[in-house]
Amino acid sequence: MARINEHYAKFPGSYLFPEIGRRVRAYQAAHPDAKVIRLGIGDVTEPLAPAIVEAMHAAVDEMARRETFRGYGPEQGYEFLIEAIREHDYASRGVAIAADEIFVSDGSKCDAGNVQEIFALAARVAVTDPVYPVYVDSNVMAGRTGAMAADGRYAGLTYLVGNDANGFQPEPPAAGAPVDVVYLCSPNNPTGTVATRAQLERWVSWARANDAIILFDAAYEGYISDPALPHSIYEIEGARDCAVELRSFSKRAGFTGVRCAFMVVPRTVTGVAPDGKRVSLNALWSRRHSTKFNGASYVVQRGAAAAYSPAGLAQTREQIAFYMENARLLRDGLGAAGLTVFGGVHAPYLWIRTPDGATSWEFFDRLLTEAQIVGTPGVGFGPAGEGYFRLSAFNSRANIEEAIARIHGGVRGRR
Amino acid sequence: MARINEHYAKFPGSYLFPEIGRRVRAYQAAHPDAKVIRLGIGDVTEPLAPAIVEAMHAAVDEMARRETFRGYGPEQGYEFLIEAIREHDYASRGVAIAADEIFVSDGSKCDAGNVQEIFALAARVAVTDPVYPVYVDSNVMAGRTGAMAADGRYAGLTYLVGNDANGFQPEPPAAGAPVDVVYLCSPNNPTGTVATRAQLERWVSWARANDAIILFDAAYEGYISDPALPHSIYEIEGARDCAVELRSFSKRAGFTGVRCAFMVVPRTVTGVAPDGKRVSLNALWSRRHSTKFNGASYVVQRGAAAAYSPAGLAQTREQIAFYMENARLLRDGLGAAGLTVFGGVHAPYLWIRTPDGATSWEFFDRLLTEAQIVGTPGVGFGPAGEGYFRLSAFNSRANIEEAIARIHGGVRGRR
Repeated sequence: MARINEHYAKFPGSYLFPEIGRRVRAYQAAHPDAKVIRLGIGDVTEPLAPAIVEAMHAAVDEMARRETFRGYGPEQGYEFLIEAIREHDYASRGVAIAADEIFVSDGSKCDAGNVQEIFALAARVAVTDPVYPVYVDSNVMAGRTGAMAADGRYAGLTYLVGNDANGFQPEPPAAGAPVDVVYLCSPNNPTGTVATRAQLERWVSWARANDAIILFDAAYEGYISDPALPHSIYEIEGARDCAVELRSFSKRAGFTGVRCAFMVVPRTVTGVAPDGKRVSLNALWSRRHSTKFNGASYVVQRGAAAAYSPAGLAQTREQIAFYMENARLLRDGLGAAGLTVFGGVHAPYLWIRTPDGATSWEFFDRLLTEAQIVGTPGVGFGPAGEGYFRLSAFNSRANIEEAIARIHGGVRGRR
Repeated sequence: MARINEHYAKFPGSYLFPEIGRRVRAYQAAHPDAKVIRLGIGDVTEPLAPAIVEAMHAAVDEMARRETFRGYGPEQGYEFLIEAIREHDYASRGVAIAADEIFVSDGSKCDAGNVQEIFALAARVAVTDPVYPVYVDSNVMAGRTGAMAADGRYAGLTYLVGNDANGFQPEPPAAGAPVDVVYLCSPNNPTGTVATRAQLERWVSWARANDAIILFDAAYEGYISDPALPHSIYEIEGARDCAVELRSFSKRAGFTGVRCAFMVVPRTVTGVAPDGKRVSLNALWSRRHSTKFNGASYVVQRGAAAAYSPAGLAQTREQIAFYMENARLLRDGLGAAGLTVFGGVHAPYLWIRTPDGATSWEFFDRLLTEAQIVGTPGVGFGPAGEGYFRLSAFNSRANIEEAIARIHGGVRGRR
């Protein structure tokens, strides 16, 4: 009798994005002429940078000739990519990361979902609320939580609430709180807010004092516009002893459909075995990575490396500047319409307080029916997201301007 | 205190392939002029087929233009690839598989490592011995086994022994044996042997009678040369109720460095929840796949689909025929040298009984030092592999012929 993983039954029946899809399809069926603008899912829209395209073509050609064909690559990633990462993402910011501390993968969603495997089932996990759902769901699947309570929270998980008062950057738990592992995301998805250096210092200090691990998701670091803000957790003294960092090419280089990411696991970060011995997380992740993964596509890794060439850097920075100008326009436009907006300065997301006390889904329906704009209800990212709404700046300039005009003409008008 | 996954400590200190690498490097350092022929890891050597190269270039060009750029794709895979799989791998063999029963991934090693997640930790697992190590290691990591005993076996796993007598195709366990889930691989890695229709019928019959699940790894189905042999487990009546099938483009289309695979999970395969309800494995895997994976690379999926075009089919079949002629030459040459050989007829692997009662590692050292050939010690695939040795047929014709000549001149000469 094949018994199934019983923890999947803890998930609620409906998921966020399918429900959004259902409502949008229903609206379009009833209004076939409506021109819907999609600012929901955070997916890039600009084409790949020419330097990346060129590198991928060259790699495909290498694969076409026996002398240059590549079969299985190193599971950790090719040296040409790892060296580019070391130099441009770390050494250039004064951070020393060794080649064997970098693990290239096919995407940060996989890394974010898989990293929990190296911890004990008994490890006590904390997440922020609102939160990128993969952190929560992967721990539910693993059995690290109890059932979901009426308030939408899973028993056994610690939720650190982001709100207006803390600018959606919750402080570390109190000393002695039952937290071994915490997921942080900065610049943050979904709120678009960013942790300051002082905030990150408090997190690192807390982790070291409490022998905890920070899983730091920096998928949006390329969108940081203030040179004083850290891009990597390792810019904070002591982070090499307590933090794992997740990075992605998805938003940094338009790779959502190309698929490449990496995780940094310093050899100096350790956890505790049942016998009390300290064990390097690097060794555990290396075993996990080489046992269940066979390396990212060669063609893709060549494309990712090209994002670090002088031309690739210039071209991808221009793309990011384009999206961030979209974000600025949206932020200004929404503010002018009387809405309270967070984020959008160091991240391509805007986090809006819904007007008139509307719930997240009420505002979703209103924005869809009155302005034909699709966003994401904040409550889909956790109970503390209720009363908020996420808009993404990934779209054409024309669509962003049209969206702002519709919000001014429609949504504001009815407040 | 971040407690680590305690099950990783069950792994022995040295792994197979790093140990092979260490010995080969030591030999080459002492004999810098030796021309070592590598028939160890099963990695393709022929370049990508022209039809695949062309499709990947076209896809890269699509990614370079705003109008045709693709961001996140469907997590299950693009319809163009799923339809090609349905038609060419299944419908053409009389097997009806629905589009939502196919899950495209970035590789079969991931699928083979991840599929165990949808079963309860209490599920009782069986593997063949010798076996592809990922099946075992992923269950050790999940905590489904006890410690490794002195005989090299993990407590709590059922081992089904392949040997000369059963031609390395073990029969199903006895009725009532404590097995809920069994991993089968045919054509088999590492032994190169293949299951007959009658054998697969016995497996399906056993699974249905015992409410068990077969995880059928058909990564090498493209190498089957006898038209009477099934390519898919679903060619067996009743398999749609008890089997999940893993397929890969790695060996079928030379994708070891490109990365694409898929898993078939029929909606009719069910497991049992704690409350006794039957739950569709398709629903569970769909949740797992969409929670922890973000789709395979668009460029890669276009390449995989091109392997099914008329030109792609002809070109990849020619590559397989080339490798299988290598296998035939090796098989004949090793037989003529007096060695007992299994496999190599429907798979690119030859499974050799080591001569003179040598252990697998003794024969490894002998082949390396006397013939400068690298293979894989059978014991690396499980205790029942002791006294056997795997050679791969993936190499140039010249190297295969040279390897055969060396074995005739050296290894045989000293028997």
